[in-house]
Amino acid sequence: MSSTRVGVLGATGAVGQRLIQLLDPHPEFEIATLTASDDSAGKSYREAAKWRIETPIPDDVAELVVERTDPDAVPDDVDLLFSSLPSSVGERVEPGFCEAGYVVSSNSSNARMADDVPLTIPEVNHDHLDLLEVQRDERGWDGALVKNPNCSTITMVPTLAALDSFGLSTVHVATMQAVSGAGYAGVSSMEILDNVLPHIGGEEEKMETETRKLLGSFDGAEIDLHDVDVAASCNRVPTLDGHLESAWAETSEALTADNAMAAMRDAPSLDLHSSPDQLIEVFEDPNRPQPRLDRMVGGGMSVAAGGVRETSDGVQYNCLAHNTLRGAAGASVLNGELLVEDGWF
Amino acid sequence: MSSTRVGVLGATGAVGQRLIQLLDPHPEFEIATLTASDDSAGKSYREAAKWRIETPIPDDVAELVVERTDPDAVPDDVDLLFSSLPSSVGERVEPGFCEAGYVVSSNSSNARMADDVPLTIPEVNHDHLDLLEVQRDERGWDGALVKNPNCSTITMVPTLAALDSFGLSTVHVATMQAVSGAGYAGVSSMEILDNVLPHIGGEEEKMETETRKLLGSFDGAEIDLHDVDVAASCNRVPTLDGHLESAWAETSEALTADNAMAAMRDAPSLDLHSSPDQLIEVFEDPNRPQPRLDRMVGGGMSVAAGGVRETSDGVQYNCLAHNTLRGAAGASVLNGELLVEDGWF
Amino acid sequence: MSSTRVGVLGATGAVGQRLIQLLDPHPEFEIATLTASDDSAGKSYREAAKWRIETPIPDDVAELVVERTDPDAVPDDVDLLFSSLPSSVGERVEPGFCEAGYVVSSNSSNARMADDVPLTIPEVNHDHLDLLEVQRDERGWDGALVKNPNCSTITMVPTLAALDSFGLSTVHVATMQAVSGAGYAGVSSMEILDNVLPHIGGEEEKMETETRKLLGSFDGAEIDLHDVDVAASCNRVPTLDGHLESAWAETSEALTADNAMAAMRDAPSLDLHSSPDQLIEVFEDPNRPQPRLDRMVGGGMSVAAGGVRETSDGVQYNCLAHNTLRGAAGASVLNGELLVEDGWF
Amino acid sequence: MSSTRVGVLGATGAVGQRLIQLLDPHPEFEIATLTASDDSAGKSYREAAKWRIETPIPDDVAELVVERTDPDAVPDDVDLLFSSLPSSVGERVEPGFCEAGYVVSSNSSNARMADDVPLTIPEVNHDHLDLLEVQRDERGWDGALVKNPNCSTITMVPTLAALDSFGLSTVHVATMQAVSGAGYAGVSSMEILDNVLPHIGGEEEKMETETRKLLGSFDGAEIDLHDVDVAASCNRVPTLDGHLESAWAETSEALTADNAMAAMRDAPSLDLHSSPDQLIEVFEDPNRPQPRLDRMVGGGMSVAAGGVRETSDGVQYNCLAHNTLRGAAGASVLNGELLVEDGWF
Repeated sequence: MSSTRVGVLGATGAVGQRLIQLLDPHPEFEIATLTASDDSAGKSYREAAKWRIETPIPDDVAELVVERTDPDAVPDDVDLLFSSLPSSVGERVEPGFCEAGYVVSSNSSNARMADDVPLTIPEVNHDHLDLLEVQRDERGWDGALVKNPNCSTITMVPTLAALDSFGLSTVHVATMQAVSGAGYAGVSSMEILDNVLPHIGGEEEKMETETRKLLGSFDGAEIDLHDVDVAASCNRVPTLDGHLESAWAETSEALTADNAMAAMRDAPSLDLHSSPDQLIEVFEDPNRPQPRLDRMVGGGMSVAAGGVRETSDGVQYNCLAHNTLRGAAGASVLNGELLVEDGWF
Repeated sequence: MSSTRVGVLGATGAVGQRLIQLLDPHPEFEIATLTASDDSAGKSYREAAKWRIETPIPDDVAELVVERTDPDAVPDDVDLLFSSLPSSVGERVEPGFCEAGYVVSSNSSNARMADDVPLTIPEVNHDHLDLLEVQRDERGWDGALVKNPNCSTITMVPTLAALDSFGLSTVHVATMQAVSGAGYAGVSSMEILDNVLPHIGGEEEKMETETRKLLGSFDGAEIDLHDVDVAASCNRVPTLDGHLESAWAETSEALTADNAMAAMRDAPSLDLHSSPDQLIEVFEDPNRPQPRLDRMVGGGMSVAAGGVRETSDGVQYNCLAHNTLRGAAGASVLNGELLVEDGWF
Repeated sequence: MSSTRVGVLGATGAVGQRLIQLLDPHPEFEIATLTASDDSAGKSYREAAKWRIETPIPDDVAELVVERTDPDAVPDDVDLLFSSLPSSVGERVEPGFCEAGYVVSSNSSNARMADDVPLTIPEVNHDHLDLLEVQRDERGWDGALVKNPNCSTITMVPTLAALDSFGLSTVHVATMQAVSGAGYAGVSSMEILDNVLPHIGGEEEKMETETRKLLGSFDGAEIDLHDVDVAASCNRVPTLDGHLESAWAETSEALTADNAMAAMRDAPSLDLHSSPDQLIEVFEDPNRPQPRLDRMVGGGMSVAAGGVRETSDGVQYNCLAHNTLRGAAGASVLNGELLVEDGWF
Repeated sequence: MSSTRVGVLGATGAVGQRLIQLLDPHPEFEIATLTASDDSAGKSYREAAKWRIETPIPDDVAELVVERTDPDAVPDDVDLLFSSLPSSVGERVEPGFCEAGYVVSSNSSNARMADDVPLTIPEVNHDHLDLLEVQRDERGWDGALVKNPNCSTITMVPTLAALDSFGLSTVHVATMQAVSGAGYAGVSSMEILDNVLPHIGGEEEKMETETRKLLGSFDGAEIDLHDVDVAASCNRVPTLDGHLESAWAETSEALTADNAMAAMRDAPSLDLHSSPDQLIEVFEDPNRPQPRLDRMVGGGMSVAAGGVRETSDGVQYNCLAHNTLRGAAGASVLNGELLVEDGWF
């Protein structure tokens, strides 16, 4: 297969750097353009991005000149754009790129709940991608806009999808989220050392609404939201990467711990380049998963689960995913792979 | 009031040191004896205890000679003993002290759920203390054994007691517990730096059972357990002190966030020396309480609550308490003060 | 003594908040005015400052309206101003306040090495304060400008002053500085969790030059810099408060560990309100001082030292001070107390 | 080349697990036997070792039965043993293995300074290995005992060796060591969170004496210690892996920062399997090296250096190495590779 020329919108931030780390060695994609804020435009990427990832900045990418985040600045032979723009910027500029014919796989939080925008985790709701036909019809776009969910939502939803055949009705979930989820400057050290922050603005609402869309059904015209009642409490803890979540799932049908673990283990993965072999890695040891030890399961693209035990009306368990891989950059890349596979451009 | 001569069983451990920090300046108590394991017996307390508390070791206590943990080693003019023994030791030796006539206020986890042992948070279930009459009758003790609950239980129960007039039926709670709860050597740095431990052995069961006893009713003969259904998920996070908990309380009667906050604010404190002015400090700011900023509210003896919001069948909120003060040493001291006030020796 | 009406320039930042924490209960000072950037002017202090200190914001201060940082905005009956402005702002505006007649005790790094500006640690170089006469002569000011040194310098210099009678010639020092030294947003959590930053811009030069001025001699006209050769390596570590430093002092005369410890213990304190009883607290235990356990020695105003041992040409030791108390806000307040005591206004 | 059958003495500890992580995929070595304390003997390695490394426990190793640490328990066809025993155990048992004919590459601290025991960093003092002939003569061993230095020594010595052609005379060094250097239970979380420990027992002496042996010259009969005067101050900081050190090297000949950097960059590596391409990775950016970002340079086997600047009589710089790879397990494996290459069995 010939490789697809891609670009990254908002390439200098934390998720943008992760995107480049994933896209540079990617066999299907070739990084052709990088955009950032006007301050960075015209500089080399090496200069514009303060690279903070453990692996070295790829030399060829480092020499690229950063462009303004504007459709006119993107070469015509680029087909697919990955967006990690701040949501306020994404809201303003993403439609313009779609109108200009680009397919955009976006991690930005804007428009995730829009009726005609697919919010997609490939292994969970692949079929929602067909909503793009509705989108193109309505908006008259040659391009397309696909979103992946919030990192804290992605961590939990594959496990909920696995349990949904038992009649998922109610979810309580408390998150313990890593600082990288807020970006490089998002959480100061004085806030988080020897501390936990019990609130992350907007995060609880995202988990509660996005979950219903992701688990919803698509009838060819619109997404019928799942009626699961999600109550989320979001906390920031002093970890670098890996969101850990304590969850309770209530189901209308009887659900044992063994059945829950089996359902999670059986949740199918896909055959995409970034798909893990095992979508959900289930631990028997109640001391696992742990963020530092297990965030890289499946190359950072699996979800880990453990501590499954029965409650009076369902099961309790912990789940974990790498928030900037499976939960952000990797999620966008995976959606990009699916867009290629399904021939959306 | 003349002061009561007291002793500390298991005086060298983390909770033992906190007990000494609280008892040394206490106007009602005078530290007369300290016990520890046979290894420490015969040494000065300064030598036996590796003092690790921010305030200096009290000079007079430092010079006391540590005794074996044995009733024969305790002077007869001591009336009240505070116990912070490991539970396996407590189970073995506490009854002997009670039989020998000592009143024991114990933080050890053994015997907390025994039918004739009061498990007491003074502000919550003061009346349970009268179970001591049953205890003395049944066991033929001159002394008495009173327990305080586990630190993670204490953090939550005052808030649940405040909501119980709305018909408390179900509780989901995820804890983010500080490392001091495991004692000085309990959690190694390699386990917890950049990490969260998703399991604390036995902790979830303690929260689920102790809560039902604490909120139960005493009819003069026995405790009728409350039928609240508690599902707890216990996690260890990299904080030094202060257990933070994300809780959901479901009630049979309609409960608004405002009503919940009012009920918590109105929860009465007591007039004991260690009682805080305000039992539950309720924050309007959703970013509070935070362990580092708020663990010392009420001198470390209040419970802090915040982030209260309505869910489909109750309320969601966070609560926090200092785990070695309100949650352990302070809880035992408070029970000791109540035992004096009520004339149990 | 009637109290002096004071103001705080740059009152909303990390050091500004510490200043208010110290000044509000201060028996000699009365907070009369607070200034901040134009964004904050006109707001209540409660609103303008995001209060992040463990003790509550003082109610009376919280209600003060924040003024612009401009001499015209400061009431005439205010005599003394404490400045914790960013150095670029301090450089621009501090002279104007002095010209307008205010005495300024400043923690900002600008002008610390200016020939006619006293750089003062009261217990170390009280006599340098008389340089203010030169300053007033030269600049024609009714007011005055006094500086305290950088936090990393203050931590070390009292110990060096104590050793100077042995002929201090060379100092090597490696710092392990707390994140609060960089202000609230100065060090992001992604930078410092599980990490050490081996460089703090400008810090090494400050330690090397300020030390020579502080230990220099004043002949009534100018400061003759001490010729000690200081080589500093500055590191940021994941602690909240308390700069720990590993130092080697070489002396021209023979120096034993015992002599060094005695000299440190004998270093005199002053009789000012904020002076600690013991200027340098010397530990025999080589495991002390530790930042978390010992940063509050002397109410946060002492320097702690330990691990003293002889090397081939002097001594090696560790020293520690609370960087936002003795190292910043407390240092400015102490200078303010000295200015009052010496009758500079 | 056919692979060498090897064993690990003390296989369950922190360094033992790292040894297995390195040896399992090693092309030249085949793990044939594992020993541990009597408590673990007879159990499977999976059961005996609480595996705590990020990569999974190798399946084939996990099934090996752990033996007693006794020469009789090691198969005869094993040639090379890697030892990560506690030093008190190593002192007692290592000679017996050597007498029984095994070549032992040991990380344990016992016997490092013994006259007839090579203390070796292959890239620094390869020629010291010939001391084994003296050792065999004197002790009548068929086997041999080779030591690698302490982790904090290894971090610094390659850079000092690079500077020695300028006449290295004096070294001051302050370390900021990671918690993994103390083993899994070595540093409790209550000791190190929000803290630095200013003392590590015995560590300073190791750095001071081992350095002189490593940089010493071997005349065919004995090691003539280098006369460099090393003064070390050792600190423990809250990092997981990677010892960072602030060093000052004084030289008898003039040394510029550029010359120092060039000498470090030119320090030759070897052609062994575990040798890094670049022995010392020198950073121009003064903000590097940082433990979290740079501990894996050269696969964890390089030393990183940065912040090089001239002082009045030499240079100041920072250096960093991964303490359980280059500083412990990797050091032993590298010595093992050299023993094979040089035909010592």
